[in-house]
Amino acid sequence: MPGNLIGERFVTMSFGESHGTCIGAVIDGCPAGLALTEPDIQKELDKRRPGQSLVTTQRKEADKVSIISGVFNNLTTGAPICMIIWNKDSDSRSYESVTSIPRPGHSDYTSLVKYGGFSDYRGSGRFSGRLTAKNRYTNDTRCPNNEIAKEMSESILEARRGGDSLGGVVESVTLGMPVGVGEPIFSSLESDLSKALFSIPAVKAVEFGSGFGGCATQGSKNNDTFYKDRNKVMTRTNNSGGILGGLSNGMPLVIRVGFKPAASIVKPQRTLNLVTGDEVELSVAGRHDPCVVPRAVPVVESMVSMVLADHAIRSGHIPAILKS
Amino acid sequence: MPGNLIGERFVTMSFGESHGTCIGAVIDGCPAGLALTEPDIQKELDKRRPGQSLVTTQRKEADKVSIISGVFNNLTTGAPICMIIWNKDSDSRSYESVTSIPRPGHSDYTSLVKYGGFSDYRGSGRFSGRLTAKNRYTNDTRCPNNEIAKEMSESILEARRGGDSLGGVVESVTLGMPVGVGEPIFSSLESDLSKALFSIPAVKAVEFGSGFGGCATQGSKNNDTFYKDRNKVMTRTNNSGGILGGLSNGMPLVIRVGFKPAASIVKPQRTLNLVTGDEVELSVAGRHDPCVVPRAVPVVESMVSMVLADHAIRSGHIPAILKS
Amino acid sequence: MPGNLIGERFVTMSFGESHGTCIGAVIDGCPAGLALTEPDIQKELDKRRPGQSLVTTQRKEADKVSIISGVFNNLTTGAPICMIIWNKDSDSRSYESVTSIPRPGHSDYTSLVKYGGFSDYRGSGRFSGRLTAKNRYTNDTRCPNNEIAKEMSESILEARRGGDSLGGVVESVTLGMPVGVGEPIFSSLESDLSKALFSIPAVKAVEFGSGFGGCATQGSKNNDTFYKDRNKVMTRTNNSGGILGGLSNGMPLVIRVGFKPAASIVKPQRTLNLVTGDEVELSVAGRHDPCVVPRAVPVVESMVSMVLADHAIRSGHIPAILKS
Amino acid sequence: MPGNLIGERFVTMSFGESHGTCIGAVIDGCPAGLALTEPDIQKELDKRRPGQSLVTTQRKEADKVSIISGVFNNLTTGAPICMIIWNKDSDSRSYESVTSIPRPGHSDYTSLVKYGGFSDYRGSGRFSGRLTAKNRYTNDTRCPNNEIAKEMSESILEARRGGDSLGGVVESVTLGMPVGVGEPIFSSLESDLSKALFSIPAVKAVEFGSGFGGCATQGSKNNDTFYKDRNKVMTRTNNSGGILGGLSNGMPLVIRVGFKPAASIVKPQRTLNLVTGDEVELSVAGRHDPCVVPRAVPVVESMVSMVLADHAIRSGHIPAILKS
Repeated sequence: MPGNLIGERFVTMSFGESHGTCIGAVIDGCPAGLALTEPDIQKELDKRRPGQSLVTTQRKEADKVSIISGVFNNLTTGAPICMIIWNKDSDSRSYESVTSIPRPGHSDYTSLVKYGGFSDYRGSGRFSGRLTAKNRYTNDTRCPNNEIAKEMSESILEARRGGDSLGGVVESVTLGMPVGVGEPIFSSLESDLSKALFSIPAVKAVEFGSGFGGCATQGSKNNDTFYKDRNKVMTRTNNSGGILGGLSNGMPLVIRVGFKPAASIVKPQRTLNLVTGDEVELSVAGRHDPCVVPRAVPVVESMVSMVLADHAIRSGHIPAILKS
Repeated sequence: MPGNLIGERFVTMSFGESHGTCIGAVIDGCPAGLALTEPDIQKELDKRRPGQSLVTTQRKEADKVSIISGVFNNLTTGAPICMIIWNKDSDSRSYESVTSIPRPGHSDYTSLVKYGGFSDYRGSGRFSGRLTAKNRYTNDTRCPNNEIAKEMSESILEARRGGDSLGGVVESVTLGMPVGVGEPIFSSLESDLSKALFSIPAVKAVEFGSGFGGCATQGSKNNDTFYKDRNKVMTRTNNSGGILGGLSNGMPLVIRVGFKPAASIVKPQRTLNLVTGDEVELSVAGRHDPCVVPRAVPVVESMVSMVLADHAIRSGHIPAILKS
Repeated sequence: MPGNLIGERFVTMSFGESHGTCIGAVIDGCPAGLALTEPDIQKELDKRRPGQSLVTTQRKEADKVSIISGVFNNLTTGAPICMIIWNKDSDSRSYESVTSIPRPGHSDYTSLVKYGGFSDYRGSGRFSGRLTAKNRYTNDTRCPNNEIAKEMSESILEARRGGDSLGGVVESVTLGMPVGVGEPIFSSLESDLSKALFSIPAVKAVEFGSGFGGCATQGSKNNDTFYKDRNKVMTRTNNSGGILGGLSNGMPLVIRVGFKPAASIVKPQRTLNLVTGDEVELSVAGRHDPCVVPRAVPVVESMVSMVLADHAIRSGHIPAILKS
Repeated sequence: MPGNLIGERFVTMSFGESHGTCIGAVIDGCPAGLALTEPDIQKELDKRRPGQSLVTTQRKEADKVSIISGVFNNLTTGAPICMIIWNKDSDSRSYESVTSIPRPGHSDYTSLVKYGGFSDYRGSGRFSGRLTAKNRYTNDTRCPNNEIAKEMSESILEARRGGDSLGGVVESVTLGMPVGVGEPIFSSLESDLSKALFSIPAVKAVEFGSGFGGCATQGSKNNDTFYKDRNKVMTRTNNSGGILGGLSNGMPLVIRVGFKPAASIVKPQRTLNLVTGDEVELSVAGRHDPCVVPRAVPVVESMVSMVLADHAIRSGHIPAILKS
């Protein structure tokens, strides 16, 4: 399969371009009989909507979703669900130069070589973080600790003032996992989750449980010892991040996802003019995110959910048709 | 597809159990006309052969590979290549208790729940690192720096003496990458590489280029600036690890893979007797690796190669049939 | 994968319902740099448009296609191409009874059981021949012989007057095939073509070359003998239908596809009321095709084209990116 | 995926060559806890064993199967099941000429072009009917009517005496189908069954229920009317062959599969010497089947079973793990 598809039994196919007609997705394999309306999806989309605070891009994207198939009388039918977000007129002029002068840290150069110049470069086209349109929590940075959140905001605003950007790490915790979800070897839970998470633009690192830190310790410290609490098998620590041998062990699923600092910055950088071969200085105009991490929180959440839905169906934890 | 398959055009299907009749693999999609003999594979297998030094397990595994299909007159035919390693008689007695007393940090518990008690638990069955049978360098730990290698050896031997184990990190660098290998979104090079790497037992973290470290800096520091050297587009730094927008950019592909400390240790640990529900103390007998990392080096190498072979065929960089 | 996807490298995902918001398809894997506009698709769609003669349904479907992704400056970009036909308001009242009284020969009963009553039954939903919206030739029945075409028309009109329907056979001939397209075993050209053709509603039989007829003869009569004509290897007869061992042999690809008579007929038939358990008499109202075969000709053509495009990419006959 | 794989949840990968080291298959996705021994498979294999009567080839193939993974204590474990039949020394001398002089009706020419001369041509390699090694009934031709069976035998023996071969049709009937097995559109039961059946060498035609015959009638005759018999919904006729809208309707699944006469015949035929370009006369030596149809009966049976097992798992009719 080409790369725009993910999942085995709960399959998502992505289409559309950042500055094209629309962005959309078709979900195939969603069980029949599930209550689903446009506001259900819209609520999730709004969590990643830009323009909500100074720590993110100032673009105003309405991002209204339409469900155009697979739902009848507000219930899923078992047929493919196509959802579309129509793009408003966008200002693509600032992207015209990328076909000759690639932005450092961006896919401009690699996609130019791969697609022979045919790709829709406007707004980074298919490589845009906009393709993930899908937290609004108590603070701008979605950090659970409000003190640290304040420090984070200050750092991001300082980067913004300097025409620069910052990276960061999103931690995802899933509670209520049944035991035994996942397939051994190439479809281990770590394998399929990492595959999905590395498909989010700007992700460069993924770790589970104690991750790289655990790799620097001894087995006697990193092993989680089993005990029983009211008939449920538990572990005293959770260095495994809830996954043993590629299968869930019933403990919280803990994943940390590293996002590189956004590549698009106003601060001038050296790059090449591919047409003339000269080195030039480039300042990337546009209303870019000084830090994508706050808006990436619901994206990580959605990706993890998609993979878990797929595995739940594959392992028989979700039936193909709900009770009618 | 169930989880024992990886790849789209260069497909590997794994089968066999650690203490069963054999372990093996079928490769489908290998181009016709490639010179291939059993010694070619054996040379790679010998790199991860145990018993080569005190820093690894003292088991003696002969691991002789047989190619039983897909090769004719020492050339690949384009048909599936089946390779088998027949297991010698192994001592499985030390594994009999795992069906009731799960080892901490192991898949004993999760696989018991998933496969309802039918799985072949001997030698960890399908969850064994032995499934990766596929370095021989100038030192025991395969560390490129001989001074640091000596320190590594000492740490591992100390852990061994204490009945304990150590984790570690393997760094993989691939030179000579063409530009544009990879597919956007769900089959980005990071996505498919991480999926394969997380299928290696004990891997809990994967990062590309500057990885988690890069996520803690600014865009102006992490972006790699382009320049031209003898008509080749290069970047001055390689924080991207050779991948931009999911596609190779022609710079060295740099991946770091974190291995947790081996879960099987002689040092006593608390666990549960699943049958009685009592907490018990467990010392895992057997000749286990005090550190799997030295023997994991060629495994990481092979996994990266498999994914790159698949992507090279998918992107048309390798033709289906070589010149005859 | 769920069943709404076909192809390996040139992948089509179908979505939408006959009387829902829209019907559509996403094509993933189309090479970049191919000229493509809405009129190109519309021309093909118009070939199967209903209401063109008395031998087909009298419904007037406008069926205007919109390309909403994957094309930029009238050239394909290599990204997924989403095409949509928006449904006009349709009269679904005549379908309300099918949830209790299944039409003989239709999928009403089987889909009711499979999807637990959640499916969109209007206009047969996902089971509608309308999902194939994609001949205008010199006569109403698309028969190459005008004399026989006249007899065909008369038979169809007679069936129409009697409230009945007729089946028929569509023969597809593809010229200019290269040698060696197809994969052995499970993706033989016959395997993949038949899989696609049997996905067209009402198809119950498929044969290649001399087909069932050839099965009734001897090897000495059915074998096609080779000869050379101006350096091209040819066969004197074409009983193989252009396929040997699952691979194209360069001769015309000949397929015959049998369509059952349309199940929806005005003539009263006995069926069951699933709610009461009583046998009832049913006359299926609506402007149905007395014979779907004339409108099925371009559908067969499109299905064959889709499979050949996929195989041409898989076998390297079509590159991923055309010359820019 | 390359073509050597079939199924989505119950996946079979075929490998091996007719005159190579072995032929084999790996089954991935078989539920854990199923009783399975080598004799279970051997019994099926023996049904297709050659040399049982004069109507088939006189070769003596022992064809002893070994299960080398995925079974522990005579129960499936949920891991991939690898089965191998080791080839005895075979006489491949009669195949040496096929690389220059292609046999009419065979894949010699097409595979030569596709695999650039690298394929294992001995015994037709991967294109051999031997790849289907998997009736023993009351007569040599496996015809349910003993009178007609006698006529069949006489016709086949007459063809044999004339150095010729005969084709034929295998009808497969599956009883006890649940309602609603199959997926709409591209994985309809007809789609997936035909894909598997056309992968059997020599199959050139497949029809369901009334098939091509039904296509020549009216809807009022071909529609199967519903009635109820002891609370089970039935149809009075079974022209649909048990499939409506791609889904099983609970009636017997009826498929007819047309096999062309075997291409290898002693009777001289004209063909080309591809090296010199001359037309030559060819008599194919070897102990070939005068009619493959009797030995194809259990092959059709196995293919239908594989597809139904896959669909039963996909639709949730078979759980991943049986009760322990």
